[in-house]
Amino acid sequence: MRAGPSQEDIRRHNLGTLLRYVHVRGPASRATLAESLGLNRSTIMALTADLTAAGLVREELPRSPGRRAGRPSLVVRPESTRVYVLAFDVGVDRLAVARVGLGGVVLDRREAPHEGRGPVEPAELVATLAGMARSLVRKAGRDAVCVGAALAFPGIVRRGDDVIRFGPNLRVGDVTLGEMLSRRLALGVPVAVANDANLGAIAEHERGAGVGYDDMVYLHGDVGVGGGIIVGGRLLGGQDGYGGEVGHMGVNPGGRMCSCGARGCLESEVGERTLLTLAGRADLTGVTSREAVRAIVDAADRGDVVARDALHQVGTWLGRGVANLVNIFNPGLVVFGGTLRDVYLGSAAQVRSVLATEGMAAPRERVRLRTAQLGDDTTLVGAAEFAFADVLADPLHVLARLRDPEEEPVGS
Amino acid sequence: MRAGPSQEDIRRHNLGTLLRYVHVRGPASRATLAESLGLNRSTIMALTADLTAAGLVREELPRSPGRRAGRPSLVVRPESTRVYVLAFDVGVDRLAVARVGLGGVVLDRREAPHEGRGPVEPAELVATLAGMARSLVRKAGRDAVCVGAALAFPGIVRRGDDVIRFGPNLRVGDVTLGEMLSRRLALGVPVAVANDANLGAIAEHERGAGVGYDDMVYLHGDVGVGGGIIVGGRLLGGQDGYGGEVGHMGVNPGGRMCSCGARGCLESEVGERTLLTLAGRADLTGVTSREAVRAIVDAADRGDVVARDALHQVGTWLGRGVANLVNIFNPGLVVFGGTLRDVYLGSAAQVRSVLATEGMAAPRERVRLRTAQLGDDTTLVGAAEFAFADVLADPLHVLARLRDPEEEPVGS
Repeated sequence: MRAGPSQEDIRRHNLGTLLRYVHVRGPASRATLAESLGLNRSTIMALTADLTAAGLVREELPRSPGRRAGRPSLVVRPESTRVYVLAFDVGVDRLAVARVGLGGVVLDRREAPHEGRGPVEPAELVATLAGMARSLVRKAGRDAVCVGAALAFPGIVRRGDDVIRFGPNLRVGDVTLGEMLSRRLALGVPVAVANDANLGAIAEHERGAGVGYDDMVYLHGDVGVGGGIIVGGRLLGGQDGYGGEVGHMGVNPGGRMCSCGARGCLESEVGERTLLTLAGRADLTGVTSREAVRAIVDAADRGDVVARDALHQVGTWLGRGVANLVNIFNPGLVVFGGTLRDVYLGSAAQVRSVLATEGMAAPRERVRLRTAQLGDDTTLVGAAEFAFADVLADPLHVLARLRDPEEEPVGS
Repeated sequence: MRAGPSQEDIRRHNLGTLLRYVHVRGPASRATLAESLGLNRSTIMALTADLTAAGLVREELPRSPGRRAGRPSLVVRPESTRVYVLAFDVGVDRLAVARVGLGGVVLDRREAPHEGRGPVEPAELVATLAGMARSLVRKAGRDAVCVGAALAFPGIVRRGDDVIRFGPNLRVGDVTLGEMLSRRLALGVPVAVANDANLGAIAEHERGAGVGYDDMVYLHGDVGVGGGIIVGGRLLGGQDGYGGEVGHMGVNPGGRMCSCGARGCLESEVGERTLLTLAGRADLTGVTSREAVRAIVDAADRGDVVARDALHQVGTWLGRGVANLVNIFNPGLVVFGGTLRDVYLGSAAQVRSVLATEGMAAPRERVRLRTAQLGDDTTLVGAAEFAFADVLADPLHVLARLRDPEEEPVGS
């Protein structure tokens, strides 16, 4: 229970809110900002002046001045090329690193194949990622500043110290990948680490299928199945940041053995390996998860009966999982991302049919089922959003600290 | 995205925060309030003066003045006997109505047996509840004022208009019980309606086993099984307020038929009827749910093998449900209330053993399992807290409106 904020708290909040507005929704006129944020124009002007001085936004005349007579309202635009973050995505088959500008613009990116199914040596992984990042940083303008970095990881990550507690398909266990990577990069910014599906949820909520939904469930398939859940507009973290592990919800007692040690988890019933086994396509292991799943969905589309049956079975369990989540969370939207995007497209009728039987009428009637709008980049985009979090929460403080790492404002 | 609050917003927020502080934690000195709320003493004095003038708190010398020399700090005390709410609890076997004073003091209460297993006529139910409430109101002091009312209902309630969408064990379907009851009471306050388990969660979170836990799961058994989940300190509502229906999480495909129409829900596997059937005690139907469940737990304690087996089976499914919820929510605490209190006490070893197998290591290691601290009153206390919500959010506005229903302050 805390009392209302001080004037300084409010100014910081307003600076962050204005910056977040143009970051998420794009350039906006002072008039629009005043109306959307519920502030008067002189306050907007003062906030914009501070953000401009810090090099976070600039003001310019609108590109299409509109039809109204008189002087057009200046447009506030995020400094997308000058202010950026580094986003890292460790997939099972792919590594991706992007330099993402304020406003969410992917300025540049690198991808590399990754053999993440066997044991991965943390030091090697960090070296590879750092190398990719350095080649991006080298190409950035001399006045560009990196304000944050974050890494999406397909494992269970502890909030606070970012220790990876469980990475079933990557076997790096209990390491602080973020700290190692931050040291290696030497850009003066920490590298935050978070669960890939949690970040996918953030990305779809802010920039994808979930825009406008305060309550949504994001299901992510890679080799495993993860989840990220938005409750009342915020990511469900739980006590230690492990929240949203819906892949290990038991749906089939006595079912298939799961990587977590239990049986019949959602992951073990709808994951890539099970789909491949059911489809009789264990030969597809040389390709990436996404290619393998797509091959089966394509085969089913062409009339392959075994592939169809496999998708039907997987769709049944996926439908049960979705029904449980709809009953528990009463979300407005369920989004399927990663390999589950294709699994869902290949089994949508079955998923919906099971949901109609197992989901309760009330929470079921208004829920929408959709595929991820950000395609293969949900988790990467989520990492970028996560990396921007600090500067959006307290823009001037973060900028000041980057310019002078010794400086710690009073009260911080 | 909204900008920071106005001065008037902050004052309203601070009034509510101070009032909530003494409501939840009890009388507090100005010095304690200043420190806990992060406000200076002159602000505390001004806020207290406003709340005192409105008749919501009073200031007095501390009862035990302590050892410090000098004038002791005045203690701010909620006006518990003057400011009250009406809390209604519609159980399957029992109706309860309480007059609860600011500060959470149960001033007076009425209980009546209820035959809620068959069809219930809404008008009759409302007449009974109103009669019980009237006898409480009649005994209140002449200067006492009712500032709110709320009803706990074992069904699915839509947020916004409080329509009961599903009440499997009460069969009143799609009615607005709150509106009917409010009209009948004619006290000038609306009667909010909410799911009983959701209210139980609020009660245990604020005044019971869950104090200090920002992430907790409350499981409530009556005849059915309901849930209320606190995520980041707030009740999970979902898009329409139906969130937390964990009783209809499918745990056993092809299992027992559930009242919701699906099979193998948590409710159908661990509910009272199943326990009675498994224990061979279908004869126990003349008693209340709680008595029936207690009889089986007592029998098991005395060595009855059939009762033990029944509890073991039910404990297995309860453990699976808990494991799923621990994986999904990473809560700090799981609380068992209503009949599940006794079920848990009779099967704790089995619940914990299944959780150890089916729950993932990371979210499992710090979770605590506890029974409801508020005993049979969780849902009733939750209804009272829900009824206080409006006055705690905006104390002066609510009081002004009660004194003069025509008066609507500017900007409301």
